[in-house]
Amino acid sequence: MKKLINSVESIVDDMLQGYVAAHGDRIMLAPNSRIVLRKNKKSADKVALIIGNGSGHEPIAMGWVGKGLLDANVVGEIFAAPMPDLILEGMQIVDNGAGVILLVSSHSGDIMNADVAVEDALDLGINVKPLLMYDDISSAPKGEEHERRGSPGTTFIYKILGAGAEQGREIDELFNLGERVRDATRTLGVAVAPGISPLSGQPMFELEENEIFVGMGVHGEPGLGRRKIGPIKEIVAELMEIIMDDLPFVSGDDVIAMVNGSGGTTMMELLIIYKEVSNFLAKQNVTIFKPLVAEMVTTQEMAGFSISLLKTDDEMKKLWIAPSSAPYFHL
Amino acid sequence: MKKLINSVESIVDDMLQGYVAAHGDRIMLAPNSRIVLRKNKKSADKVALIIGNGSGHEPIAMGWVGKGLLDANVVGEIFAAPMPDLILEGMQIVDNGAGVILLVSSHSGDIMNADVAVEDALDLGINVKPLLMYDDISSAPKGEEHERRGSPGTTFIYKILGAGAEQGREIDELFNLGERVRDATRTLGVAVAPGISPLSGQPMFELEENEIFVGMGVHGEPGLGRRKIGPIKEIVAELMEIIMDDLPFVSGDDVIAMVNGSGGTTMMELLIIYKEVSNFLAKQNVTIFKPLVAEMVTTQEMAGFSISLLKTDDEMKKLWIAPSSAPYFHL
Repeated sequence: MKKLINSVESIVDDMLQGYVAAHGDRIMLAPNSRIVLRKNKKSADKVALIIGNGSGHEPIAMGWVGKGLLDANVVGEIFAAPMPDLILEGMQIVDNGAGVILLVSSHSGDIMNADVAVEDALDLGINVKPLLMYDDISSAPKGEEHERRGSPGTTFIYKILGAGAEQGREIDELFNLGERVRDATRTLGVAVAPGISPLSGQPMFELEENEIFVGMGVHGEPGLGRRKIGPIKEIVAELMEIIMDDLPFVSGDDVIAMVNGSGGTTMMELLIIYKEVSNFLAKQNVTIFKPLVAEMVTTQEMAGFSISLLKTDDEMKKLWIAPSSAPYFHL
Repeated sequence: MKKLINSVESIVDDMLQGYVAAHGDRIMLAPNSRIVLRKNKKSADKVALIIGNGSGHEPIAMGWVGKGLLDANVVGEIFAAPMPDLILEGMQIVDNGAGVILLVSSHSGDIMNADVAVEDALDLGINVKPLLMYDDISSAPKGEEHERRGSPGTTFIYKILGAGAEQGREIDELFNLGERVRDATRTLGVAVAPGISPLSGQPMFELEENEIFVGMGVHGEPGLGRRKIGPIKEIVAELMEIIMDDLPFVSGDDVIAMVNGSGGTTMMELLIIYKEVSNFLAKQNVTIFKPLVAEMVTTQEMAGFSISLLKTDDEMKKLWIAPSSAPYFHL
């Protein structure tokens, strides 16, 4: 293990202190230093948007806290969902009386802790609606979408609901919009080489030198399986055919596309991947609107990438490009 | 080698096609597809700012082409400066009659090719001034600053001159400002693990499991030497003492700070590093203005980072935060 840290125990606190030191003009920590907040709270008539997630995937989710995006990120330990009490505290802080949408990425720990926190919040009179987010095609078959894992495409929901909440939309309308974005999103990824767990100092999985793993989850969960590496054009075509068939995406569709790097894949490679995605979609007569090509949802220095598509409409497009002050969201 | 590419030969062209596909609202390729341009050319009374550099360090330099930043990036092969003819062509395209500043990062190939291009441009009547950029403390002793290598701190010059040129400042004034920024910048970095050369498929250098290399250049060039890894607070303190002494930076100074990731270092680690930089400077009574914590100047998936400080003034600060449309410059 060769991580640039002080100690395993201090990783999360050190990171959060560094984050507010760098971006203290826009974000701050709550009195409980495991909750990242936007600096200027929303006005009282607006719905708050909050997410809890495990650390180790930066810049998500803390990097997307800001005006026009998330009101708060409740920060768990490395690869572990935050405890219910912490999520509850976050909801109490951001609630303005207009209600709270709690984004929950579909992983068992996140769901379990969110469920407890939501029950407690409702008991306290907070109007909270938990929105379960899932998009990873590889984790359950078509027809069982609700059994799928949350993966990088869920970030479309953060941005679109964040912008909608900033406009002052009501909670039920936002929740329905969130479901629509989720149901119109598909993601499929490839792992190329493991990241190193900051906890154990060990690689998080093993792959042969000439192998890639299609559909691996963000923590190394099983997906579609191993294949030999080949030209990236072939790999992208294989992924895109699965993605397109699943929703399905069809000729004439508008999509927002994301090519997300897992941490150890170069920008050089991400841009080449985007070229192949863009060419593939052009041939299918699918139009891309304002893509995101970046490392946003990472698993330490894992090499690999994912492709996410959102079948979009004018409303979603406007919200996708609406202004945001989040330090690490940029189109 | 497990790079996500089509072929070694097509890397640069594939990457550039992906880049304009993703950001075609703001950037475009010249008829010569190895020159990246901002889409809306500057008005005729403004100085143009251009740089040539080898590929493999993305998002720099192409990612910083845009309004308020670079007018063009002339793109070389992997880790190789572009040829003089290509640089000349870039200068001819961006010249508006108000003159051209050619940024040259101090590496032998870059200097050699820039020199030829500048001579040819002057013969053609282009008023070009080449600005040699260097900032890497480890590559030559104090007093011989002009022998030092260009490293991530040179990007301060891109942004500050880019914003100044957009304001319509004259070429001599901009050139002097560029020299002032260069002379007030110091960078020192650490390599933790090698990147893989896309050309050879081999690691670019070797380091023991418990070793880091202080002061290694962006291509693995020799620096101050190897040391055992330890808590990041100690490593940062060691680097900061060298950086502070070199200019020197002193109590009461304002600085712009950059913590740059080399490619394989996580955002988690970069934020922890920034915390230590920020704490160190606070104790020295040095104030940081609008830092940059990101992977900007990379060497493929090399793990490591650099710290750059610019002793700054109000003029530089305003230009640093002035608007820009470049796809990968964000504070």
